[in-house]
Parts: sequence; structure tokens; C-alpha cells
Amino acid sequence: MTISPSTAAELLRGWDDIVILAHQKPDGDTLGSCFALLYALEALGKTARVECADGYPARYHILYGNYAPKPFTPRFVVACDVASAELLGPLAEKYPSVDLCIDHHKSNTLYAAHTLLDAAAAATAQAVYHVIAQWGLPPDARVATALYTGISTDTGCFRFANVTPETHLIAAELIKHGADHRAINKQMFDNKSRGRVAVEKFMYDTLEFYQDGRVALICLPADILERYGVTEEDLDGISAFPRRIEGVLCGITLREKQDGAMRVSLRCEPPLDASRICARFGGGGHTGAAGCTMAGPPEQARGLLLQAICEEFAAMGL
Amino acid sequence: MTISPSTAAELLRGWDDIVILAHQKPDGDTLGSCFALLYALEALGKTARVECADGYPARYHILYGNYAPKPFTPRFVVACDVASAELLGPLAEKYPSVDLCIDHHKSNTLYAAHTLLDAAAAATAQAVYHVIAQWGLPPDARVATALYTGISTDTGCFRFANVTPETHLIAAELIKHGADHRAINKQMFDNKSRGRVAVEKFMYDTLEFYQDGRVALICLPADILERYGVTEEDLDGISAFPRRIEGVLCGITLREKQDGAMRVSLRCEPPLDASRICARFGGGGHTGAAGCTMAGPPEQARGLLLQAICEEFAAMGL
Repeated sequence: MTISPSTAAELLRGWDDIVILAHQKPDGDTLGSCFALLYALEALGKTARVECADGYPARYHILYGNYAPKPFTPRFVVACDVASAELLGPLAEKYPSVDLCIDHHKSNTLYAAHTLLDAAAAATAQAVYHVIAQWGLPPDARVATALYTGISTDTGCFRFANVTPETHLIAAELIKHGADHRAINKQMFDNKSRGRVAVEKFMYDTLEFYQDGRVALICLPADILERYGVTEEDLDGISAFPRRIEGVLCGITLREKQDGAMRVSLRCEPPLDASRICARFGGGGHTGAAGCTMAGPPEQARGLLLQAICEEFAAMGL
Repeated sequence: MTISPSTAAELLRGWDDIVILAHQKPDGDTLGSCFALLYALEALGKTARVECADGYPARYHILYGNYAPKPFTPRFVVACDVASAELLGPLAEKYPSVDLCIDHHKSNTLYAAHTLLDAAAAATAQAVYHVIAQWGLPPDARVATALYTGISTDTGCFRFANVTPETHLIAAELIKHGADHRAINKQMFDNKSRGRVAVEKFMYDTLEFYQDGRVALICLPADILERYGVTEEDLDGISAFPRRIEGVLCGITLREKQDGAMRVSLRCEPPLDASRICARFGGGGHTGAAGCTMAGPPEQARGLLLQAICEEFAAMGL
């Protein structure tokens, strides 16, 4: 059911009028993969367009520019970086059958007729790079920039544990072919929106420590967007912050919801197990990162969570 | 006067009892380069040691571990990432003649008898990589980890404009040979010391904006280290922060000195010229980043600086 880059490349080469689907709440990897594929298919003389259930965030402007999707009746449907049909959002109804999915998520549900699944790749853009390479056209600067964006955003600019030698080898090729890595990295990793500055100030002002500094907690109020005039984009990655502090074994990010419930994101260092803690409250995830939603009132939920973490510390002899 | 990696490799191969010098206030590139060279020379059966005028910061522990320098009378002196003899600090007197310097700074004063200067390299560690490669030994994990540290720290983890395809190609090789990129990147880019958290909170609390948000300013008081219980290391890179904020064309970082003077770091976006502004106060630097020291009292210095910047905005029609 999973296919190789060359089979995927052959499939795509055999069709025309191709629609390329990104996942909802699009990130750099889904957009980078989709637009790279679009530009490469167009270079092959094909008619294609990208679709996404949500709008494109401004920070990815370098990828889509003044993109205007062409109107045509699709004959072939590709999804990039979309691990399950549900992640297409409303587009799942519009395109109930996906012909090809190119992805790197182990959790891919194999919902497409054909799936190119490169679970060892740090980004779907790596898999797309191999597909495009099969066509024998060197990537032009737009393709290279889009693929580089996918790779750099999904790896925190080559910082995360998912990076392999291949990630760097592909990055080298993309920069050789004109990927504007300086502009991308400046936009993605250097610039801070005024909203982000407001969020980080709030975060530092309200940071709480427990367990002799081994637990750090931030709590985002239900009205944070309105109160600080910020967007969801400004909150990106905030939940990773508390665990990054020296000496912290358990980082907690709470987000109060309008209905009084609380969304919990937990990041833990061994021997603590974030998924075990979240499972107590009906949630789940991985050892290092997990989540759950707790019923309100928020103060009570926070108390129950801190108590559970305290018990875990004791159970682990910490 | 400048030599190739193979000539540098031959020189080193011909000598023994080699002392390897790092620059004072050591960073990841000087330490990564020095320790990589040390471990590679030891693998060749040579006696060598690393020396530095200052202690090794704890964050680079992965490079030096429990390193104990061997006592011997040096017969050959190499400096890595040291652009001028002054940067050796007190070691410049101890080692008045340097036989070989391996560096990537264009500004290298060519003070050594032989200089391998790779000004296109993002890090001196790239140049050291090429020297070691000449010996035909694949880098072991310690060498690879040290070189990777030099490259990743001097490029902000492949984020800065100095990154080239070669930087990524070498990173791929180093990871293949066991560089512990995950541990390094976590230590260098993910972890925040409690002191750093205090500094960033201070920064957010005192951030000032001028010129309709196009100028951002932070001012570090003379007693910041004592007041917040932080170290110079915790202040690393702070001066880059104000310019990173959306819409900011001129980022100012002021550091009050004990004698009442003020150290100014300026970062500017075109068409503003940081060096031109700093030159008004007897300082200098590059278009994008420059500095100067202004006499006190601090309030007056700050006023004069903001006035000069205001004039530059007007002159540029901003």
C-alpha cells in the first residue's frame, strides 16, 4: 500500500489536472510540500492547484506570493503531509477519495489509494524532494525555497531530534539550487510579531514554579487573544517553553477554554512520563509530550493536575 | 601567507607536543575547533593540549568533559578561531609566536607564521574538518561532536546568513560519524538557564519603543549581574533581540557601565546604517550591526543617541 518515490513520480507524471491538498491549520511543511509539488508539476507542463481548508498564514507569503488557484475539474488528488482524511477539514467532503498521499507521519492512516510514507524523513518536504528528483528537472528557486521551508520549519531549523544526515544533504542541494534560506529563516525563526512579544511578556510575568523549580507552569486565560490583541499564530510553540527552563522536569501549559474547561499540554523529561500523567485525566500522547482536557473550574483542575504530578514525582523517587 | 588544508595537515603531522589555543571568552566554535583538533591529533598518536585564557563555560561540557591538559613543553603552537593575537588574552604573552592559525574571520591579522584562512566558511570548525580529513582517519564521535558544536553555534543552528551548501554537507558527514547533534542542540538552543529566564523577563518588562514602533530599546543596568544573580553567559545574544521585533528598523541595546558610561549595540535594517550612527559617537562596525561607547550620564547619552537616530530617520525619509 505504500509506494516508492519513483512510483509516486510515475503516477503523477501519468495524470493531469491535479489538485494538491494541504492539511487544515497549515504549517510550513504542508505548504512547502504542496507548493513545491505545484511548481514542479507546472514546470512539467501540467495543470495543477493547491487547496487548503484554511487561509495561508502571512508568514509563509514567500511560498505562495500572489497565488491564484486555477479553476479546473480535478482528475487526480494528492495530499501532502496530511496524516488522516480528517485533517483535510471541510476538504475531506469535497475530495472524499485521495489518489496519492505523500507524508512522513508514522500515524498516517493510509486513507489514500496510494501512500508514499517516509517515516524516517524529518519533513514531508524530504519525500517530495525525492519525487520531484525522479522527473530529472533540477528544482528551480521557487521549488527549492518551498522544500527548504518545509524542512526548516519541521525541524526547528535543524535543531530537533528528527534531523538525519539526509536532511542536511537535501538542504545543501536546495541551497545550491537557489532556496532563499536567509529570507525564510529570518521570517520563521528571527522575526517576532508584536503579538508574540506581548505573549512572551505575559508568559514571563505569570510563570510559576513548583517542586523546587522542577515543575514550571504557564496558564493562558480564555480571553488571551482579545486581551492582548494576538492571534493563534502568536501562540505557536508556547507549550514547549516551560520545559526548556534549566532544571525543569515537567513543563505545564494550561489554556483555559471559554466553557470553563482547561486544555493541558505537558512536556516531561525522563523518568517522568507525560502520557501516563495525562492518561489519568482521559488524555494521552507520548512519553515526552502529552495532553488532556480537564473539566473546570480551572482552579480545581490545576490543583488536581499538580497533585497528580506530585504523586508521579513521589512514585519515581524524585 | 595563507595555506591550504592539506599544507596545514602536513605541518601538524610533522610536529609533536602541540599546544592548541582558543580565544578568550571562548565560544562554541573556538572550543569545538580546538577540542576536535586535540582528539584528532591524539588519534594520530601525538601529544597535545588545549589552552584558553578563560575557563570553559559549563554549556560546552559535552566538548571537554573531565579534560585535564597534559603537561609538556610545546614545540608547535596552533590557534583556532583566533582572529588576532590580542584575542588570546594573557596567553598572547605566554605564546608570543603562533606557528599555525586556523580561522574563518576575514579580519584575521595574519599574526601567525602560517594561516589557514577559510573566509567563506561559516565556522572555523569547517576549516578544521578539512584539515582532519587530510589525515584519512574518519572523525570519531568526539571529533564529530566537537566540530558539529562549532558549526551549529556559529550559525545559530544553520539559521544565519553565513550558511552555505558546504556547511550542510559537513553537518551531514558529522552526524553520520556520530556527532551527538540532539544533545548539543538541546543544550545550546533549547535549554534556558534560570538566569536567562530572569534576563528575558527583565527585557520584556523594560522594552521601550520609539518612532512609532520602528525603534526598540532595552537598557541593562550596571548592576544587572548582581541584581538578578545572572552571568555574562546569560546575556549572550541579547543585543540581537530588539531588532527581531516585527516592524523594528533599529534595535538598541544599552549597557550601563560601572563608571557611568554606556555601551551601545545597534542593529539596523536598510536603509539605516548602524555604523554611520555609531560613528557619530566614535564607534563603528557594519551596516547591520555596530557599536560605540558613550560618556555618561546615561540619561543624557540615551537622549543624544535617540536624537541621532531620529535625525537618521529624517535623513532617510523614513
